[in-house]
Amino acid sequence: VTISKGSTIQPVILSGGSGTRLWPLSLEQRPKQFLKLFGDSSMFQLTLKRVSGRGGYLVPIVVGGVDHRDMIQADVGALGAEGHLILEPAPRNTAAAIALAALTAPSETPLLVMPSDHMVRHPARLLKAVEAALPVIKAGYLLTFGITPSQPYTGYGYIRRGAALAPGVFRADAFVEKPDGRTALRYLESGDYSWNAGIFLFRAGDYLAALAEHAPEILAACQMAVERGADVDGVLLPDRQAFLDAPSLSVDYAVMEKSARVAVAPIDAGWSDIGSWDALDEFVGAAERGNAGVVEIDCSGCFIRTEGLPVAAVGIQDMIIVATREGVLIVPKGRSEEVRGLVELLKEKGA
Amino acid sequence: VTISKGSTIQPVILSGGSGTRLWPLSLEQRPKQFLKLFGDSSMFQLTLKRVSGRGGYLVPIVVGGVDHRDMIQADVGALGAEGHLILEPAPRNTAAAIALAALTAPSETPLLVMPSDHMVRHPARLLKAVEAALPVIKAGYLLTFGITPSQPYTGYGYIRRGAALAPGVFRADAFVEKPDGRTALRYLESGDYSWNAGIFLFRAGDYLAALAEHAPEILAACQMAVERGADVDGVLLPDRQAFLDAPSLSVDYAVMEKSARVAVAPIDAGWSDIGSWDALDEFVGAAERGNAGVVEIDCSGCFIRTEGLPVAAVGIQDMIIVATREGVLIVPKGRSEEVRGLVELLKEKGA
Repeated sequence: VTISKGSTIQPVILSGGSGTRLWPLSLEQRPKQFLKLFGDSSMFQLTLKRVSGRGGYLVPIVVGGVDHRDMIQADVGALGAEGHLILEPAPRNTAAAIALAALTAPSETPLLVMPSDHMVRHPARLLKAVEAALPVIKAGYLLTFGITPSQPYTGYGYIRRGAALAPGVFRADAFVEKPDGRTALRYLESGDYSWNAGIFLFRAGDYLAALAEHAPEILAACQMAVERGADVDGVLLPDRQAFLDAPSLSVDYAVMEKSARVAVAPIDAGWSDIGSWDALDEFVGAAERGNAGVVEIDCSGCFIRTEGLPVAAVGIQDMIIVATREGVLIVPKGRSEEVRGLVELLKEKGA
Repeated sequence: VTISKGSTIQPVILSGGSGTRLWPLSLEQRPKQFLKLFGDSSMFQLTLKRVSGRGGYLVPIVVGGVDHRDMIQADVGALGAEGHLILEPAPRNTAAAIALAALTAPSETPLLVMPSDHMVRHPARLLKAVEAALPVIKAGYLLTFGITPSQPYTGYGYIRRGAALAPGVFRADAFVEKPDGRTALRYLESGDYSWNAGIFLFRAGDYLAALAEHAPEILAACQMAVERGADVDGVLLPDRQAFLDAPSLSVDYAVMEKSARVAVAPIDAGWSDIGSWDALDEFVGAAERGNAGVVEIDCSGCFIRTEGLPVAAVGIQDMIIVATREGVLIVPKGRSEEVRGLVELLKEKGA
């Protein structure tokens, strides 16, 4: 991939998540992006590697939670990579997180915003799509990369493609948050919809302008937080009190769904948000499931993952079993969305 | 219960087991009898309590493995009870273990031999049966207590009742080791058979005489082991080298199945050997299954037990789940006999 002169891209890696959907492996104090689900690298590291040291890309800006500072710096350090770190004093969702990064970049700089806890099996395809999309964002568009739906999943946002703006890039005619099953099936069959993958490309100034128009309180709070913030050892610590004033909105809700100039670039890059144990199971495939601490008798189609603790199973089919030092999960395949509810119940019981 | 004069009974508690059938709760270094499966007392302690401080019963002799000395002494001490401890230098099965105890008792003393890892829900009924059986053993019989079968279980030995010797006591006409399913069903339907519960009553001298006749090598080895053994702080340590010469045979196989004067006294005392998770599940019943660290969504009929580790389950029926710091077990009810095989597999895998 060759990026034409004057188009140097600023990667922005969002590491603010603290989900527990992969409980008992992911925990509030050990979010998904820091798990080594795929060999020796965390998802955070794999995200960083996509762009690190690559021609046409600047040193990434990492926006992460202040509580995860050590994990972020350890992961960056272990790669021998670089990153400019911005520490959110508290979680305020993606619109504010991206604003912090945009405020530190020159207005004309294209920002490639990537969550740190998504997998992209074929990063070269994503980067090729980024290159193809650059002329469109230079015309002031806010662009999101879209994933062709493989099933009528109701857990993602859907984007309807409109007129072509460039090869492989389209106007986004409509954003639909988490449709019901019947609607999702209609979208899937129509072929006009993409899932919203949460990977964005826009110029810093265009994003801030859109914020000014559609979510001015977020912009004002972030501006104040950066202004009053501290730069300690090259790490930007925005002012906590100012940042807390930012409404907690996703970038989709705050800006993408409201702006008139939004584009979508469908990609086929082997994307997964690894948003559940089922998603991980689908992503890794049967070949990668071997696990030293597991014995099975008369079992089939199970996803069993353990960290050190021996797991022994008899006579079960199509189950997800996960055992760590923090807990044990047993859930049938296809129902791992219910893990959130289990974690809530465990909290209520004080377990 | 009043024991007539001159019939003071010597309890002998066998604690040599090291099974892993309740893995991952029972381990080789933490056998079943030391688990606190029922409130605050271990099964070993519940066995000791049956006879401790009771009129007509001597201070129990405990025969246990040398590796479990600390656990035995801690359990005895925690009860404020007493016990004469004999430590087997190596496991040599029940015939030799009982011989060690019999060799330290006066010949005329009735020995009540009880495994330390069986449950008896109504101990008073057992003790009443002991009283009723005393006249029979004074006539030189070796007596075993029998359990009326509740199902055609193939895992136990069966004993056929013969002529009555006293109220509730019968000649044992035949011993059958672990019959096949069809035979077990026939036994169950005939009403003439009892399970062999492994609880015995006989005079020390009669047992040793039977050993001399049917298993003289065991007797010789145990005599030598006691003779050359040491008494340290009131604990009998039989000589290891001598004891290793004893063939490893069960008391049933060495003596009970071969002697001409064997009796059986059926009891209905709520007995269980807790020989598997299914057996424990049946014994405890639904009311006692509550567990603080467990959350379930859409589950039914499950036995879930955890030690500290939170367990969260969705959409499973009639499963046994056990989680400890040593491992996790998932097995359908009715199949917990397969745990042994799982533990073997784990060993092979070095897990």
